[in-house]
Amino acid sequence: MNSLIPSHLEQEIQSRVARIASELVSAGIDAMLVADNVGLYYVSGRVYAGYAMVMADGTARYFVRRPCDIDGVDYIRKPEQIAELLGSVPAVIGMQWDSLCVSDYNRLSKAFEGSRIVDCSAIMRRVRAVKSPYEIDLLRSCGLKHKEAYSHIPEIYREGMTDVELQIEIERQLRLHGCLGIFRVHGESMELFMGNILCGDNADNPTPYDFAMGGAGQDPSIPVGANGTVIADGNAVMVDACGNFNGYMTDMTRTFRVGELPELAMKAHRLSIDINRRLAQEGKTGVEAKRLYEIALEMVQQSGMDDYYMGHRQKAGFVGHGLGIEINEAPVLAPRSRDILAEGNVIAVEPKFVIPGVGAVGIENTYVVHDDGMECITLAPEEIISLN
Amino acid sequence: MNSLIPSHLEQEIQSRVARIASELVSAGIDAMLVADNVGLYYVSGRVYAGYAMVMADGTARYFVRRPCDIDGVDYIRKPEQIAELLGSVPAVIGMQWDSLCVSDYNRLSKAFEGSRIVDCSAIMRRVRAVKSPYEIDLLRSCGLKHKEAYSHIPEIYREGMTDVELQIEIERQLRLHGCLGIFRVHGESMELFMGNILCGDNADNPTPYDFAMGGAGQDPSIPVGANGTVIADGNAVMVDACGNFNGYMTDMTRTFRVGELPELAMKAHRLSIDINRRLAQEGKTGVEAKRLYEIALEMVQQSGMDDYYMGHRQKAGFVGHGLGIEINEAPVLAPRSRDILAEGNVIAVEPKFVIPGVGAVGIENTYVVHDDGMECITLAPEEIISLN
Repeated sequence: MNSLIPSHLEQEIQSRVARIASELVSAGIDAMLVADNVGLYYVSGRVYAGYAMVMADGTARYFVRRPCDIDGVDYIRKPEQIAELLGSVPAVIGMQWDSLCVSDYNRLSKAFEGSRIVDCSAIMRRVRAVKSPYEIDLLRSCGLKHKEAYSHIPEIYREGMTDVELQIEIERQLRLHGCLGIFRVHGESMELFMGNILCGDNADNPTPYDFAMGGAGQDPSIPVGANGTVIADGNAVMVDACGNFNGYMTDMTRTFRVGELPELAMKAHRLSIDINRRLAQEGKTGVEAKRLYEIALEMVQQSGMDDYYMGHRQKAGFVGHGLGIEINEAPVLAPRSRDILAEGNVIAVEPKFVIPGVGAVGIENTYVVHDDGMECITLAPEEIISLN
Repeated sequence: MNSLIPSHLEQEIQSRVARIASELVSAGIDAMLVADNVGLYYVSGRVYAGYAMVMADGTARYFVRRPCDIDGVDYIRKPEQIAELLGSVPAVIGMQWDSLCVSDYNRLSKAFEGSRIVDCSAIMRRVRAVKSPYEIDLLRSCGLKHKEAYSHIPEIYREGMTDVELQIEIERQLRLHGCLGIFRVHGESMELFMGNILCGDNADNPTPYDFAMGGAGQDPSIPVGANGTVIADGNAVMVDACGNFNGYMTDMTRTFRVGELPELAMKAHRLSIDINRRLAQEGKTGVEAKRLYEIALEMVQQSGMDDYYMGHRQKAGFVGHGLGIEINEAPVLAPRSRDILAEGNVIAVEPKFVIPGVGAVGIENTYVVHDDGMECITLAPEEIISLN
């Protein structure tokens, strides 16, 4: 066993490698080259500079580019040395085409001349979507800290605050509770700093990013979220902030209010809680992910709340998503999703509503999928909480 | 002119597009397809969902994938529509291979069947390295806010604090001064949350990332920076935190102390200031970037401080770097750099030292390159500042 891997993680990493290897065998791929930080973290338990090669026989080799006090690994200066160190190059090598940039791909393809390079993004996505008991423990621990940090939100609110000022104090609370701050997103489609706090009609401002909610943001360089709106009487304030406390993250949204909200907003919020309850019952091993999307939509339509659901002027096309190391993992709860829920999936469910003149309402919870339903691991109170 | 672009930016954007176009002509490329958020922000003044096509004739077209209240742009659902909208596809299309992932590249290559696709990463990097007066104004504004936020550091220090606790309060101060928080890095080699605060011997812990300094970090999922060290008497505390206040960012490091530091640390810090002064004189249009690296190294060697320079157990191989929208732009001040300094380059110079038993000392400033020297835009006091 490689000393790159912390000893308490040896079995865990062996099991992850074995699961990848099994997928490689099915796909006729001899080895997967892991080249991105998230992938390296997954197959070794730590981020390091270099590469990992997961072999179809269930073993893995670790190539470290930058010295980091680790014995028993292969040190390299450049990726071209990997082929030498392996002796013979695998006939078919998988790489993650959805994260590898073209320049790196070209260089690596040359370094493994003679190998056929194929895409194994889907394999990695599928394997990572099913969390191990160890990973689920990390996620449960995130949920507890996330809840504890959110419990301080009412006490940090001050009359006349802007959404940005409230967000800054929420960020601080999260960080004081151990949040690492960094918010990992797969791909280029989304960027966010630590979270999205939406107040009043800013919730109805569209964003270019593929998030459930929008917001104009503070600057055209990062057009999402809080925009300096002064939190006023009758406003809903939706808090959806980073739950990364240990490399894994929970996703949890709670709604707050200043003064009283109109019945339409209260009704929408109750519906969001009801949808969460219902999906927690319906979501179980073997259920199609898109079925959960459909059930949520049916409930919204039966309540006549379509106009406000998942945005008002601009609507998001999903109601939930897998998460773990990154905020956007498989499975996806969307109409065209082909994902089938499995024991160990971890998904965030976020039926949200934008009520003009009020703001965004609703909740988001993170769940672990089991054979008999979904276990909620973000247990903060779900009702709308008064800030004043 | 396209209404995607704010009216006060029309001329600025026209000029950026013209500079890209001129490079395209030289390289025999008919058009550049911009597909990443940073690139879109550069060629339009805002991040949006979609693509831009910069033509060799100096015009640009903007294709928007997600409705965002903009008139007069071409709305698309998928990139395949761009070719249709263009009528005829350009014979040679440049794409940024250093940011585009292989899956997207494959899809776009198909969408422009018949075109030859070439790499234009270097063109974009070269054009963005020379900042316009407008961009330099944004950067100067960052420098002022960055300085103001740092001025509060002594008052937020409390005896017995850990480096992480101090960092959290610094993050809050930066955010209260308008910092957007997000820290954009080009490529996959570096990740950081808002900044690096290093205290005592944690400064000597190696990191896998290509930063000037290291630090073990709080978690193996993001192994860099503060690690929970209690700030003790005789410690140096180096603060290098995010200066992104408007989409552009300054980079500024200052060193603080608790109690007295040994003469070796004080000497190293003075040397860092001296190197900054000297490079500010030597850095001017036409000078090789690597020459600045060499001058800094000569000064360090003459002082006999090599052992501590740019890290102690692990050393960084550069003394400065370009920056703007991202923290790692051209030019690079490193021994093998081929960059030649030009009016409008913006570079951070960071000669730093790690003193065992004390911590990291030195300063980092951001400079604008002019024909007659470099203008410092990060003007916080440079001496080591006492926290107690």
